[in-house]
Amino acid sequence: MVDTPRTRYAYLGPAGTFTEAALRTLPDAEQAELTPADTVPAALDAVRSGAADAAVVPIENSVEGAVPVTLDELANGHLMITREILLRVSFALLARPDTQLEDCKRIVTHPHAAAQCRQWLAERLPHAEVLLASSTAAAAAAVAEETSEFDAAIAPPVAARHYGLDVLASEIEDTPDAVTRFVVVSRPAPPPAPTGADKTSVVAFIRDDHPGALLEILEEFAIRGINLTRIESRPTKERLGKYCFSIDCEGHLTEARVGEALMGLRRVCAEVRFLGSYPRADGVRVCPRPGTTDADFASAAAWLAALKEGRV
Amino acid sequence: MVDTPRTRYAYLGPAGTFTEAALRTLPDAEQAELTPADTVPAALDAVRSGAADAAVVPIENSVEGAVPVTLDELANGHLMITREILLRVSFALLARPDTQLEDCKRIVTHPHAAAQCRQWLAERLPHAEVLLASSTAAAAAAVAEETSEFDAAIAPPVAARHYGLDVLASEIEDTPDAVTRFVVVSRPAPPPAPTGADKTSVVAFIRDDHPGALLEILEEFAIRGINLTRIESRPTKERLGKYCFSIDCEGHLTEARVGEALMGLRRVCAEVRFLGSYPRADGVRVCPRPGTTDADFASAAAWLAALKEGRV
Amino acid sequence: MVDTPRTRYAYLGPAGTFTEAALRTLPDAEQAELTPADTVPAALDAVRSGAADAAVVPIENSVEGAVPVTLDELANGHLMITREILLRVSFALLARPDTQLEDCKRIVTHPHAAAQCRQWLAERLPHAEVLLASSTAAAAAAVAEETSEFDAAIAPPVAARHYGLDVLASEIEDTPDAVTRFVVVSRPAPPPAPTGADKTSVVAFIRDDHPGALLEILEEFAIRGINLTRIESRPTKERLGKYCFSIDCEGHLTEARVGEALMGLRRVCAEVRFLGSYPRADGVRVCPRPGTTDADFASAAAWLAALKEGRV
Amino acid sequence: MVDTPRTRYAYLGPAGTFTEAALRTLPDAEQAELTPADTVPAALDAVRSGAADAAVVPIENSVEGAVPVTLDELANGHLMITREILLRVSFALLARPDTQLEDCKRIVTHPHAAAQCRQWLAERLPHAEVLLASSTAAAAAAVAEETSEFDAAIAPPVAARHYGLDVLASEIEDTPDAVTRFVVVSRPAPPPAPTGADKTSVVAFIRDDHPGALLEILEEFAIRGINLTRIESRPTKERLGKYCFSIDCEGHLTEARVGEALMGLRRVCAEVRFLGSYPRADGVRVCPRPGTTDADFASAAAWLAALKEGRV
Repeated sequence: MVDTPRTRYAYLGPAGTFTEAALRTLPDAEQAELTPADTVPAALDAVRSGAADAAVVPIENSVEGAVPVTLDELANGHLMITREILLRVSFALLARPDTQLEDCKRIVTHPHAAAQCRQWLAERLPHAEVLLASSTAAAAAAVAEETSEFDAAIAPPVAARHYGLDVLASEIEDTPDAVTRFVVVSRPAPPPAPTGADKTSVVAFIRDDHPGALLEILEEFAIRGINLTRIESRPTKERLGKYCFSIDCEGHLTEARVGEALMGLRRVCAEVRFLGSYPRADGVRVCPRPGTTDADFASAAAWLAALKEGRV
Repeated sequence: MVDTPRTRYAYLGPAGTFTEAALRTLPDAEQAELTPADTVPAALDAVRSGAADAAVVPIENSVEGAVPVTLDELANGHLMITREILLRVSFALLARPDTQLEDCKRIVTHPHAAAQCRQWLAERLPHAEVLLASSTAAAAAAVAEETSEFDAAIAPPVAARHYGLDVLASEIEDTPDAVTRFVVVSRPAPPPAPTGADKTSVVAFIRDDHPGALLEILEEFAIRGINLTRIESRPTKERLGKYCFSIDCEGHLTEARVGEALMGLRRVCAEVRFLGSYPRADGVRVCPRPGTTDADFASAAAWLAALKEGRV
Repeated sequence: MVDTPRTRYAYLGPAGTFTEAALRTLPDAEQAELTPADTVPAALDAVRSGAADAAVVPIENSVEGAVPVTLDELANGHLMITREILLRVSFALLARPDTQLEDCKRIVTHPHAAAQCRQWLAERLPHAEVLLASSTAAAAAAVAEETSEFDAAIAPPVAARHYGLDVLASEIEDTPDAVTRFVVVSRPAPPPAPTGADKTSVVAFIRDDHPGALLEILEEFAIRGINLTRIESRPTKERLGKYCFSIDCEGHLTEARVGEALMGLRRVCAEVRFLGSYPRADGVRVCPRPGTTDADFASAAAWLAALKEGRV
Repeated sequence: MVDTPRTRYAYLGPAGTFTEAALRTLPDAEQAELTPADTVPAALDAVRSGAADAAVVPIENSVEGAVPVTLDELANGHLMITREILLRVSFALLARPDTQLEDCKRIVTHPHAAAQCRQWLAERLPHAEVLLASSTAAAAAAVAEETSEFDAAIAPPVAARHYGLDVLASEIEDTPDAVTRFVVVSRPAPPPAPTGADKTSVVAFIRDDHPGALLEILEEFAIRGINLTRIESRPTKERLGKYCFSIDCEGHLTEARVGEALMGLRRVCAEVRFLGSYPRADGVRVCPRPGTTDADFASAAAWLAALKEGRV
C-alpha cells in the first residue's frame, strides 16, 4: 500500500492566528503538514523554493482593506492562487488567570487588531496603553510569559486555550461580521477546472500614465459583461503616482469572455500578471450577460470563419 | 487558345449617367459587357440571379448623403461589396442647339441633381420650372426629342455628346468638389486579400431598443482602435424608431482587430450582415493603434494559451 | 370684440397629400389658413419670411427613413420645431372611372410611394411602367386630366374624392402600419412648456473627424441617462466622410439633465443647432434614471455651493 | 503692537519622524506651535476639537502605497485638506556609539520602514531579528535607552542627533527616491484660491454594487477631460466587497469642469465627501482639454440661457 504524500502547507504564523484557523477549514488540512512562517514573504518563498506545496496567507479584510504585502508579493509572479477562504474574524481580550478587566493597563496586540477594536478600547479601557506585537498570537504568547510586562492581549479566542489564558471579554471588535479573505497559493500550474462559480485574479500594469488608462482596463471587462469583485491600486514603487491595479473578476480563465478580456488587457497594458482562476468561497454562480456565454463566442467565431470563406 | 470570359457588369442606367462613368474607371471595363438596369434593385437582382457577375451602384454622395435604396438592398443580404469607386460629380445645363439660357423655362432632371443645383437655378433661372425625370440621362434624352416639352436638362457633361445637346452652362452645382461613392457588388465570396488600406462594411441590427444600444456597437470598434468612416441609421421598416446601422470601418475582415470587433457585434446585436472588405478608393493606409496589430493579437493569444497550461 | 388672428400654416402641398392630412389633425387647423407649398424649402421659407406662422413638413417615415431635405433645411437654422404629428400612411391605386386594374399600363406616383408599393406592383401589375411625379397629389391630378398619358396614380385614398377618381385597390403598401412623422415648424421662440412627455431635437456638427467623435456625443447623453429616439448622420456637404448628426432625445430643454447634456454637446462639438423641445406625439412619459431628476441636479448644485463656502 | 497668533500644528509624532520633517518645510513652521500626536486619528481629532489649527499626516508613500488610517479618517468627514507636501524618504541604521554593524542582532523599527529596507537587511544582516515599534522615532528612542534590549534602529537620519545615536549605514532603503506625500488638514473652510496647478480630493461611496459603478464614476471625470492622479479603493467596513473610492483629480473645486464633475458624482453616488482643493506640491499646471475651460462652460451656459428665451 502506497501512502499519498501529505500536502505541505506554509502559513502566516505563528500558530494560533486567524491564518491557521483559515487553513484548518481546508478538507486536507488534518492530514497535511502545517508550517508557520514569520512573514507573508517567507510563507510564499517556501512555496517558490519547493519547501512547501502551498501557502495560506491573508489578502483582504472587510475592515482594514487589502493586505499590501500579499498583493505586492503576488504581483512579483511565479505563484498562483488556487483557492480562497473566507473567515469571520472576532477578537477577545485575553489575560492571565485572575486578572480583572480594570487591572488592564498595558495591552498588546497586532496593529490591525488594535485598529479593529479601537472603539471598544476607548469606551471600556480609556486609560490603557496599547502596545504592538508582530501578530495576535505573539501578543498572547507575550502575555502568557510569567514575567510579562503586559496585562492583556487582543487575540482570536482560540489563542486562549493555546496559551493558557482567560477570556476577559469576547467579540470586542467594533465592526461585527468582519471577514478576512485568505488565499491558498501554489506554484504555477493549469488552474483548477471551472465550476461555474469562479473568480479570476490579475495584476495590470498600465502602459503609461495617460488619462483614461484605468478606464481602458475597466472597459475590457465591462464590454464583455464581466463584473469586478475587487480593484485595488498599488504603487509600482517606481515613483509616486505610478500604479498597478490588482483586480478580481467573476469567471474563469477558460471561459471565452474572460479569456478575451485578459487578452485585451494584455494588449492595452504594459504587463499583466495572471494570479489564478479558482472557485469562489461564497459559491455564487456567475450568470453571463446575454451574448457573452461560451456558446455565443463559439457561434460568433464560426460565423467569422464562414465569412472568411465567403459564406454569408 | 481559350478566351477569358468577359465580366458582365450591370449598372444603374441608363447609359450616360455618372454610374456608367464610374464603371468605366474600372480596369476591366473596356473588355466587359455593360448592361444598364432601370433601378438599383434591378441591377443587384441581376447579380443575385447570375445574369450579371457584378453590379455598380451609387451608395453615397457628399452632398445628398446615403442612397437609401442601395443601403436597404445591401442589408437584405446575399451580396458582397468587392470594390469602391469615388467619382467627382459635376453638372451641366444641356439644351438643343440654338437654345439661349434665357429661353429655358422648363428644366428637367433627376431629383438629386435638382437638389444639388438649387442655388444656381434660383440665381440664374429664378422663374424656370423644374420637372423631374428618373435619371439625368433620361432628362437629357427627353430634351433631345424633337417635340420635347422641356427646354433644358441638368445632366453630366458627357450626356451632351451622347444626346447631341449643347452645354449652356457647366459646373452649375452649388457645392463644387461633390463626390459620389459607388460600390462594385458581387455574389458572396471570400473577400479580396487585404492591402493594408482597406474598408469593411456591415449592417448591424440592434437586439432591442434599449438606451445605449448604439453606444455598445460603437464601443466594440472603439475599444479595438478601429475608426468608423461612415455610419447611417436606417429604419428596419418594422416601426418608427426601430433602426439598423449601416457602418463602414477601417481595416479588413482578416485582420484580428476587425475580426474580433465583428464577432463582438455579432454577440451584442440581434443580427449582423457582413457586406464586404475591400480596398479603399483613396488608398489611405490604416495605422493600427498600439496593442491592436495582428502581432499584438497573436502574442496575446499565445500568452493565454500558455496560462491555460500553467506557464506564467 | 376682437378676433383672434387665424394661424397661417404653410405645408408641403399640393392639397390632398398626407401632409395636409397631418396638418388637419391639429386642433386649430379648422380655423387656420392653410397654404400648400411646392417644396419643403418653400414651406419653411414661408415661415422664415413671415408669410406663414408655421409650416407642416414630413421629417421621417417608418419605411423610407428620414426626409433628407427636411433635416438639411432644419439644420440651416432660424427655425424651431414646436410639435410633432404621427400619421399612419396607406396608399391606394386611383384611376378615372371605368378603368380596370388590368388596363393600368402607365402608373404615376411620387418616388417614395413607388418604393413603398414595389412588391404589390411586382405581383399585381408586373408589366406596368411606373412614372414619377413630384407628389402623390400631383400624380392624382395628372391622372384626372382628360387627356392624361397615365392610367392610374398611387396616392392617399383621400385624393380620390378630391380629384374625382375611383379606388381600384387600397392598402397596397408593402409594409402595413407604415407611419410618417411630421413636424410643425415656427420661427425661433421659447419652447412650449414641458409636459413630462417631451422630445428635444438638435443637430450636432463634430469638431473634427477624430475617431470617437460620435462616441463623445452619445456619452454626453448616456452619462445623464437620456435616451435617444432617433439619430441620423447627414453629410455636411463639405466633403465625403464629413457628417453632422441629427438627433432626437427624450426630455425638454428646461429639464436640468437635458440642459446640461446640450451644454456638453456645445462644448465638445464644433456647432450645435437646437431645433426645439416639444410634446411627444405618442405621449410616452419620460422616467428619469435615479440621480438625473431636476431635484437631483438642484440638490447637487446646492451641495457644490455649500462646499465653495466651506460648509461640508 | 498686536502679535499674529501662532498657528498650532498637530502632527503624527513622535518628534524626529518624517512627518515632523515634512511639517518643518512649511513657511510658517518656524513660528508655529508643533505638537506631536501618538496616532493619525489623534492628530486629526486635535483639529476637529479645536485643540490644533491644522494637522500634518502622511497619506501616501511611493513604495508602501496609501496610509489606510489617514484615508479612512478623512473619509469620516469634518476635515479639509489645504495643502500637500512631498518629502523624499531615506532611512539610516542608528546605534549607540561604539556599536559595530556586525554586532546588530536585534533591530527595531516601524513596520513600513522594515518593509522598505527588507532587501538591505537580507543582504547585510541576514541573521538579525527585526522587531517592531510604533514609529521610527520610538525605535530610535528605544535604542537610546541605556538598558535597551535592541542593538540598532532603522530611522530617519535626523533621529541620530535627536537621540544621541551613531549612523552605522545610511540610504539603506531598497527603493531609492522613495517619496512620501503628506497633507495639511484643517477644519472645513472655503478652499484656498485656485492657482492653476491644483488638485482636488474626494471620497465617493457607490450607490450599490452594480457592475460598472466604478466605470460610472470614472466617466464623470473622463467626459470632462479631468485626469485622476490617484484612486484607491477602500472597504467601507460594512462587508467584504463593499468599497468606497478615494480619488485625487487635477483641478480646483471652483473650476467649472471640476464643479460639474463633482455634482455628477454626487448624483450617481450614494455619498461624496469633498476633502479639499489645494495647490499641487509639484506645481504642474493643468492644461484643460479643448471645450473644458471655464470660458467654454460659461459660453455654453450663455447659449443655453439664450435658447430658453427663444434666441437661437
